[in-house]
Amino acid sequence: MEGMIVDGPGSFPTAVRCLPAKEDKYDGIEVDILKFPSSDVSAFEDSLRLSLEQWRSQKKKGVWLKLPIEYCDFVPAAIKGGFTYHHAEATYVMLNLWLGDGPCTLPANASHTIGVGAFVLNDKGEILAVQERYGLFKDKWKMPSGCLNQGEDIFAGAIREVKEETGIETEFVEVIGFRQSHGGAFGKSDLYFLCVLRPLTSTITVQTAELVDAKWVPLAEYKAQPYLSERKMLGRMLDVCIETSTAPARKGFKLENVQAGTKRAPQYFYNNTSQ
Amino acid sequence: MEGMIVDGPGSFPTAVRCLPAKEDKYDGIEVDILKFPSSDVSAFEDSLRLSLEQWRSQKKKGVWLKLPIEYCDFVPAAIKGGFTYHHAEATYVMLNLWLGDGPCTLPANASHTIGVGAFVLNDKGEILAVQERYGLFKDKWKMPSGCLNQGEDIFAGAIREVKEETGIETEFVEVIGFRQSHGGAFGKSDLYFLCVLRPLTSTITVQTAELVDAKWVPLAEYKAQPYLSERKMLGRMLDVCIETSTAPARKGFKLENVQAGTKRAPQYFYNNTSQ
Repeated sequence: MEGMIVDGPGSFPTAVRCLPAKEDKYDGIEVDILKFPSSDVSAFEDSLRLSLEQWRSQKKKGVWLKLPIEYCDFVPAAIKGGFTYHHAEATYVMLNLWLGDGPCTLPANASHTIGVGAFVLNDKGEILAVQERYGLFKDKWKMPSGCLNQGEDIFAGAIREVKEETGIETEFVEVIGFRQSHGGAFGKSDLYFLCVLRPLTSTITVQTAELVDAKWVPLAEYKAQPYLSERKMLGRMLDVCIETSTAPARKGFKLENVQAGTKRAPQYFYNNTSQ
Repeated sequence: MEGMIVDGPGSFPTAVRCLPAKEDKYDGIEVDILKFPSSDVSAFEDSLRLSLEQWRSQKKKGVWLKLPIEYCDFVPAAIKGGFTYHHAEATYVMLNLWLGDGPCTLPANASHTIGVGAFVLNDKGEILAVQERYGLFKDKWKMPSGCLNQGEDIFAGAIREVKEETGIETEFVEVIGFRQSHGGAFGKSDLYFLCVLRPLTSTITVQTAELVDAKWVPLAEYKAQPYLSERKMLGRMLDVCIETSTAPARKGFKLENVQAGTKRAPQYFYNNTSQ
């Protein structure tokens, strides 16, 4: 096969060419499969083999191969060529291959999902509470909560969840604490941010797809629910919310936009110091 | 082909059978490919087609298909059967297919990487600082920092990074703030937790693989570095550390093990209230 290998301008249709790729900042290679002129698996295999020879001789450290879902036929060939999976999203899988001498220094996959819960107390001392249609807490009153959307800020996610579940408009006061836990869905870890929000409206509209009911519950009645004594973390979280709601000095992390006043995108730093 | 379909005990070798699978708590299906008796792609395709017919008629909501890397040949067939990627780790890819009527309610992929940085001040008013061998800050003094390992706690990651980079032993005091940013590696978001640690030792051992140097730098000298004025977030983070180190009352989130005193695994809740 060596006689057929041609790489560079002037090659002819039957020749094997390197995969289209560019170098990254870290002495690595990013393959651009969209520019590969064939959907034939054996053509891909030949090009991959030639490319790897070349990248190894050039002392490249790592290779990234992003295969959009339409290129799924190339996945087995890449794995057999030495690649492993790195991560995937609905529309693509990212594979990589470490060519360096030492341990792999390629960046890790995302490790955490992020949840937000909202403590919303009105001026009658009632807490905004929901009853979920499914899951562990389905006959209990609990705080509105949910998962952050991709690219969503913590404060914005808390406001959105309250609005979606109950129709109540709120403004963000502070993050009053967070819990980290491990071994969740797919072996990932989770961070749950407990947010204090101030209600701006009072009339509830229940989102019935996920909820059975939502209402303003007197705080003492809410706190008396047995599951809050049985599940220490949830009971402790409520106590922290109650303590901070009655204390003269807030003890949470406020939202500080470090880019405020500039034309740059906001950059949020949550902390509890004077600004 | 219908005449060949047999599902259940007593089937014979040439028959098409459903994929081995179990039901999950949410009316979904989890395929157990390790129990599939063939590595033949067309056998998998036939079983997948039969299985999907059955699961649809049973009104199942979603199907999870975890394919270990050795089963990569089945990936194209699964995609052509309607699956999309959900996530991947080095040794497997997870695919899923939503069969429900409404919008997909299957849990999302992990969305965040987690970084930790450590503010370590000794009793001479010197800050523990490192110079990295690569990257944006390579000729600057900066705080020890790094990414959490899979399953690692924030406080433990901060202690580990300081120990690995400088040999200094520390104890965790508090998280003094955190920054959330979006659009990082692979489109994921990042949370960076700024931790205050108390040094327990003073002799530095520089980890030379990643670092050029590490030393105790007088705080005023460290703060005078021009990059801390140019990069507002980093300057602001330092100011918050300095403010809290001189203030009588700490303003960060302490570590509270909510399971303390029980035999259960620790559950950490970071907050700033009385316990």
